[in-house]
Amino acid sequence: MSMLINTRTVRIKWGDCDPAGIVYYPRYFAIFDNCTMALFERALGMTTYQFLNAYDFSGYPIVDTRARFFAPAKFGDDVIVETTITKFRGSSFDVHHRLSNGSKLAAEGFETRVWICRHPDDPEKIKAKQIPPEIVERFSSST
Amino acid sequence: MSMLINTRTVRIKWGDCDPAGIVYYPRYFAIFDNCTMALFERALGMTTYQFLNAYDFSGYPIVDTRARFFAPAKFGDDVIVETTITKFRGSSFDVHHRLSNGSKLAAEGFETRVWICRHPDDPEKIKAKQIPPEIVERFSSST
Amino acid sequence: MSMLINTRTVRIKWGDCDPAGIVYYPRYFAIFDNCTMALFERALGMTTYQFLNAYDFSGYPIVDTRARFFAPAKFGDDVIVETTITKFRGSSFDVHHRLSNGSKLAAEGFETRVWICRHPDDPEKIKAKQIPPEIVERFSSST
Amino acid sequence: MSMLINTRTVRIKWGDCDPAGIVYYPRYFAIFDNCTMALFERALGMTTYQFLNAYDFSGYPIVDTRARFFAPAKFGDDVIVETTITKFRGSSFDVHHRLSNGSKLAAEGFETRVWICRHPDDPEKIKAKQIPPEIVERFSSST
Repeated sequence: MSMLINTRTVRIKWGDCDPAGIVYYPRYFAIFDNCTMALFERALGMTTYQFLNAYDFSGYPIVDTRARFFAPAKFGDDVIVETTITKFRGSSFDVHHRLSNGSKLAAEGFETRVWICRHPDDPEKIKAKQIPPEIVERFSSST
Repeated sequence: MSMLINTRTVRIKWGDCDPAGIVYYPRYFAIFDNCTMALFERALGMTTYQFLNAYDFSGYPIVDTRARFFAPAKFGDDVIVETTITKFRGSSFDVHHRLSNGSKLAAEGFETRVWICRHPDDPEKIKAKQIPPEIVERFSSST
Repeated sequence: MSMLINTRTVRIKWGDCDPAGIVYYPRYFAIFDNCTMALFERALGMTTYQFLNAYDFSGYPIVDTRARFFAPAKFGDDVIVETTITKFRGSSFDVHHRLSNGSKLAAEGFETRVWICRHPDDPEKIKAKQIPPEIVERFSSST
Repeated sequence: MSMLINTRTVRIKWGDCDPAGIVYYPRYFAIFDNCTMALFERALGMTTYQFLNAYDFSGYPIVDTRARFFAPAKFGDDVIVETTITKFRGSSFDVHHRLSNGSKLAAEGFETRVWICRHPDDPEKIKAKQIPPEIVERFSSST
């Protein structure tokens, strides 16, 4: 058994870059977020919009994230991001992103996300919720 | 009678700028949007969050917007934006922004926004709605 | 003779959308900007990065832009943008974008851009410059 | 001796928030980046633009960053960010941000940045450089 890896190619845009001519680093987190969503879309065979409506939950916000940057990327570069879930716990999970630019590992991203729903007593509040086992299963691929 | 003008100073950030070292132009529309919200907040004496909850409507999305750019702004510049509503119609209104950088007019923005609510027959749809006269009044200042 | 039209499909991302659940409108201008760059990349057969280095100029900043919004788009939607240059003048040109969502025209964008170079007497300043005819030619396609 | 702390109040904007109505988390990194720049601006008594021109270096890009999120913030909230440098090494330094929303610690950010200059043999490359002691001194405040 191994975990599903989704690979995306992302073209760096002019507007992603700062006056140093390289990706403005908060943009990497948006790229990683899109890659996590793409991983779920592939695993579940539905768009994020469908996914948020198909299950009784309110999203999987990030509680902890880290990124390391090894080499810059500039507009016009086609970076490749490999995304996988490295661990499922009861109501949370860890995601890992490897972003390559040409032959180099340019950045790595790490996320811990929590499966949440609205609090039954107060819809303004949220609470963690067990991740459905049938979702967890979709990320395991027998090899 | 004249229309209320709200003036804001906005510090241009590193991350607002592109590889040419100047403001990435879509960011001007975010600046203008913030200035329209600030005008409403001042006229109504409440935050946008309070405002969206205090009135029976769903927002004032833009249907038409234009901007002209006369001089660039770079990170560290403190630009000044003067915002006013130039016209109220039944369910729509026009906003004008003048953005100065130092002694120069650097950009102008124009917006037409529509006052909307959820469609009573289909909450996925929206429809235009009369702007409450007590809101229109708050933008008129006798001089 | 007719003008080259470039068509791109753009997936709307969660982070492109605002609390109303639809695309935050300044993001449309970033989408349009990317589409103008993609049109040039296709016409010239090189990336924007290569293009900016291959010609003796400093970019084609926008001096005037307008957008009209007819229908919203939400995350997960795949919008289609058709981009073409509607007019070349000596040192400026007009771009038109048609953005469709499903079967509907959802937005239109209009841009006037100026071909610029650094001012020979003051590198902090810019000046308009004649667009090279060999570039203009690349946008005309005989049918 | 203690380290200089800079405190900023940041109004969360509509366009900072996602369809869940809360800050889209990559935006927190832009907020933190702005706060690091504001800390330097205060310590050195000059804008970032002046600062980048006053010293013989090319910036202080991030090589490692982490954020933890404890409570959401929504548009209209005025969050308070306290920023300080927790450690200077020869050519790198660590920054810590505490972001409060009302009475709660809502997020924390951590950054490691490197002081860089262009590589003397290849202007396309960069290399780490000793942080000038007179800069380090400006962040120490005797109490």
